[in-house]
Amino acid sequence: MSFLYKADPVRGAEWARLFAEKAPDIPFHCWPDYGAAEQVRYLAAWLPPEDMASRFPNVEVVFSVGAGIDQFDFSLLPPHIPVVRMIEPGIADDMVEYVTHAVLAIHRQSHLYARQQREQRWQAHLVKPAASRRIGMLGLGVLGQSVLAKLHDFGFPCVGWSRSARTLEGITCYAGEDELAAFLACSDILICLLPLTESTRGILNRKLFAALPIGAAIINVGRGGHLVEADLLEALDSGRLSSATLDVCETEPLPAGHPFWGRPEIVLTPHIASMTQPAGAVEAVLDNIRRHQAGQSLIGLVDRRRGY
Amino acid sequence: MSFLYKADPVRGAEWARLFAEKAPDIPFHCWPDYGAAEQVRYLAAWLPPEDMASRFPNVEVVFSVGAGIDQFDFSLLPPHIPVVRMIEPGIADDMVEYVTHAVLAIHRQSHLYARQQREQRWQAHLVKPAASRRIGMLGLGVLGQSVLAKLHDFGFPCVGWSRSARTLEGITCYAGEDELAAFLACSDILICLLPLTESTRGILNRKLFAALPIGAAIINVGRGGHLVEADLLEALDSGRLSSATLDVCETEPLPAGHPFWGRPEIVLTPHIASMTQPAGAVEAVLDNIRRHQAGQSLIGLVDRRRGY
Repeated sequence: MSFLYKADPVRGAEWARLFAEKAPDIPFHCWPDYGAAEQVRYLAAWLPPEDMASRFPNVEVVFSVGAGIDQFDFSLLPPHIPVVRMIEPGIADDMVEYVTHAVLAIHRQSHLYARQQREQRWQAHLVKPAASRRIGMLGLGVLGQSVLAKLHDFGFPCVGWSRSARTLEGITCYAGEDELAAFLACSDILICLLPLTESTRGILNRKLFAALPIGAAIINVGRGGHLVEADLLEALDSGRLSSATLDVCETEPLPAGHPFWGRPEIVLTPHIASMTQPAGAVEAVLDNIRRHQAGQSLIGLVDRRRGY
Repeated sequence: MSFLYKADPVRGAEWARLFAEKAPDIPFHCWPDYGAAEQVRYLAAWLPPEDMASRFPNVEVVFSVGAGIDQFDFSLLPPHIPVVRMIEPGIADDMVEYVTHAVLAIHRQSHLYARQQREQRWQAHLVKPAASRRIGMLGLGVLGQSVLAKLHDFGFPCVGWSRSARTLEGITCYAGEDELAAFLACSDILICLLPLTESTRGILNRKLFAALPIGAAIINVGRGGHLVEADLLEALDSGRLSSATLDVCETEPLPAGHPFWGRPEIVLTPHIASMTQPAGAVEAVLDNIRRHQAGQSLIGLVDRRRGY
C-alpha cells in the first residue's frame, strides 16, 4: 500500500516530510517517482495522470490538492473511485485575508489615493461608513461563509446567494435563479466564490452586471471560467462597473498583451488568493485515509453529478 | 447658554442638523457666527480661537473634534476649563479599516503584485501564514486596542507597548522605556497610534528602526511629529525598513516636491485613516454635556500634564 503525490514538487517535499513524521507506516512517493504502480492506493493530485485507471489499477481514493475539482476530467476516473476536495483551514484563512484586503481597498479608495500620490496631490475624500457599503457573496460554501463572517464583523451589510437555500446568522440569504436579481440589486461589491460547473460557467456576464447597482465592483476569486471577459471590459467602459479584482483568469498565466493587464480599473493577481498549506493539507488527507480505512464517510467527498 | 462649533463647515452643517433634532434646547452656532459671545458655554473646535479666554469668558468645556489634542495650545486655554478628546465609535471603526487594509497589503504583498501587473508578469509568491507575521502596536488607547483586537482575529501574533503597564487579552504587553527594545525586536509590522507629546515626538527615529527586525514595515497613523523624516529615508535606503505607510506628515498638506511622494516603498494618504463622523460625535458631545450639567466625570477628559 502506498500514497502518491502529483502536484507542485516544492510543496511535495514538504508533504513527504510531514508524512514521514505523522504517518511513517504509509510509503510516500512524489510523481514522477511512484514505486510499484499496483501498490498505489491513494493519489493526491492537481491533475491526475490521464491513464490513471490503467496505470494505477488499485487506487481507492483520489484527493484534489486544491479546494476546487473543476480541473479534473471525470471521464478518466472510474466512477466507483471517491474523489475528495481539499478542505483545510489554511485555504479559508488565506481567502479571508485576500478578499478582506480587496474589499477594504475598494471601500477606502486605495487606488484613488495611489493615483493622487503619483500626482503629488494631497486631497481627502469623505469616508463612507461600512454600514452603507453592501456586500454580496455568490457561493456559500466553506470559503464564502468564512469571508462573509469576517466582512460582517467589519459592519458591512452582507447578502449571500447559493443554488440551494441556506440559513446563515446575520446574512440575508437568497437561493436559486428566481432570487438572483433581488440579490444582485443589493450588492455594491459582488464577490464570486462559486464552484465552476456547467451551470455557473460564464455567470459573470453582461446580464448579471446590468442587475447590479450602477458603479458596483466585482471580486472574482472563483475560477476564470465564471467570467465573460468581453462583457467585463464593456461594463467597465460604460461605467456600469467601477472596478474588478481578479485572482483567476480563463487562461492562466494570463498571456502578455491581454487587455486586462493594462486596465487601471482591474486589479490582477496570479491565482494567489489562497494556497493549500502542506501542514493542513496532510492533516486533512490523513484524517480522510483513517476514515476510509474505518469505512466512514469522507470529508469533502465530491458529488460528481453536481460537480462539487 | 449656547454651543459653538469651530471646524470644517461642511460637517458643521451636519452637526447643526443633529443638534436641532437631538438637543433643540441648546442654541447651536457655527463659527464665524457665534451669536452673543457671553452666552457661549460649550466650544467644539479643531483649533480654538487664540483669544478664546477673553472673547468667550463663560466657556465651561472645550471639546476637540478629533481624537488627538496635540494641535491645541494649552497656554491659551484657562487651566480651570476641562478639555475633552473626541471618543466616538466611528473614529475607531475607520482606524480599524485603514490599518487592517495597510497590514494586509504588506502581508499579502499587494505592491509587488501591482508592479508585476504593470510589467505584465504572472508570478506567484508563497503566502506566509498570519501566524508568522508579528504585529507591534505603539500606543494602547482606545484606537490601538481596537486595531489590535481585529488583527489578533486574523491570527497575527500581536504585541503592544505603552508608557504605563496594561493588560490586554491575547496581547503581550510591554511598558516604559526599559521594555521598548524587547517589544521592537518582535514587531515585523510596527504601527504607531501614540498621542503626540513631548516624550513621543520623534520616537520613530534611527535608533528605534535599528531595534526592529531587519526588513520590518512601519505604519504611522499617529501624528507626523512622531516621525523623523530623514531617518525614515535612510532606513529605507539601507533596507533596514522595507516600507512605510504614512497617513500623517510633519507638514500637511505634504508640500509638492517632498521626497516622500515619489518613493515606491512609501504609501501616502492625506490624513484620512479616520474621520470623526458627525452622528457619533454629536452623541458623544451631548452625553458629556449632560454629564457636565449633572456634575459627573467627563468621558475623554484630557490630563494636561500628560498631554492626552
